[in-house]
Amino acid sequence: MEIAIPIFDRITALDAVGPYEVLSRLPGATVRFVADAPGPKRTENGMLALTADAALADVRAPDVVVVPGGYGTRALMHDEPLLAWLRAAHKTSQWTTSVCTGALVLGAAGILAGLEATTHWLLLDKLRELGATPVSRRVVEQGKVITAAGVSAGIDMALTLAARIAGDDVAQAIQLGIEYDPDPPFSGGSVEKAPAAVIELVRRASQQFA
Amino acid sequence: MEIAIPIFDRITALDAVGPYEVLSRLPGATVRFVADAPGPKRTENGMLALTADAALADVRAPDVVVVPGGYGTRALMHDEPLLAWLRAAHKTSQWTTSVCTGALVLGAAGILAGLEATTHWLLLDKLRELGATPVSRRVVEQGKVITAAGVSAGIDMALTLAARIAGDDVAQAIQLGIEYDPDPPFSGGSVEKAPAAVIELVRRASQQFA
Repeated sequence: MEIAIPIFDRITALDAVGPYEVLSRLPGATVRFVADAPGPKRTENGMLALTADAALADVRAPDVVVVPGGYGTRALMHDEPLLAWLRAAHKTSQWTTSVCTGALVLGAAGILAGLEATTHWLLLDKLRELGATPVSRRVVEQGKVITAAGVSAGIDMALTLAARIAGDDVAQAIQLGIEYDPDPPFSGGSVEKAPAAVIELVRRASQQFA
Repeated sequence: MEIAIPIFDRITALDAVGPYEVLSRLPGATVRFVADAPGPKRTENGMLALTADAALADVRAPDVVVVPGGYGTRALMHDEPLLAWLRAAHKTSQWTTSVCTGALVLGAAGILAGLEATTHWLLLDKLRELGATPVSRRVVEQGKVITAAGVSAGIDMALTLAARIAGDDVAQAIQLGIEYDPDPPFSGGSVEKAPAAVIELVRRASQQFA
């Protein structure tokens, strides 16, 4: 099973690495990090580079596509070669998925039209402009299209997908292998639960990258 | 604040990228991925390379050290230049931390002697040989030394550390920024909760890298 994760400059690393860490553990799976051209792609803060080992043109018919998010997705929404690759890959994929603002790229490619979908809570309304119905859930499944909420939600999405692909036992073994028994120090990890002052802090911080 | 994350071949990517995603969001923080020599370092399955931008020698007195895990840590436990770097960095660090089998490297450097510590559940007993007292908890704080359990536990550890460094409001804002409101599909993410058959699956899978 071939799993393609397109990466790009100004990516959020955890969006890609969370699902990679889960899906690479599926028996027989190969995860391929792809980009316009092979080479390093830097996160939005410049502090980390992930390497794309293949060009989009080298991976034409992946079984699974995972589109991660990050500030760089704003440019991707107008990147015709990437959007054309996504449309073509989606025709033959078994699963087409996104994490965080990767959903906006799926939306720009027309893949979310008429579907429920989710993304980072700060940008949920944007999905409507792309023909989707925004849903404030951590993982949204619509047939073969699965979207995840912000950043860390890609881990939950990938475990859900692992269960669909390989069954509950394998998915549970992967969850135990990465010791995913989360115990966050605060309960306010979603916008529904966070204090108003904390939400305001995040809104302000997000503007530095606007 | 300078945060150094040593990386190496056969690393588990999420061990490094989870804490990076949290700690890079601390106001004024710079995360530096360091290695014996700058350049790409590959995960144990070969599917992903993270780039080290600096050599160990370039980052002598980081405020925070995060040692990630992976099968490559077995070699690191005998890597004298790295162990010497860790000992020196620990002398002046504000915090010295590990994720997963990164604890075995801290232990090999003598940093865990007489302390409680944790690591991936499969290797918890190894800590005793390194002079530490193994504790089956997700995050173990001992003064300025913090160890985390397997792989995904680095996210919880880093949020705990973010709160110590910058206060609860900032840590909560980071948690909300990465939308960390985890909702794993299964409840068996720890060895205490997983079914015996699933534990056996993971034990067997782990041997392919032995």
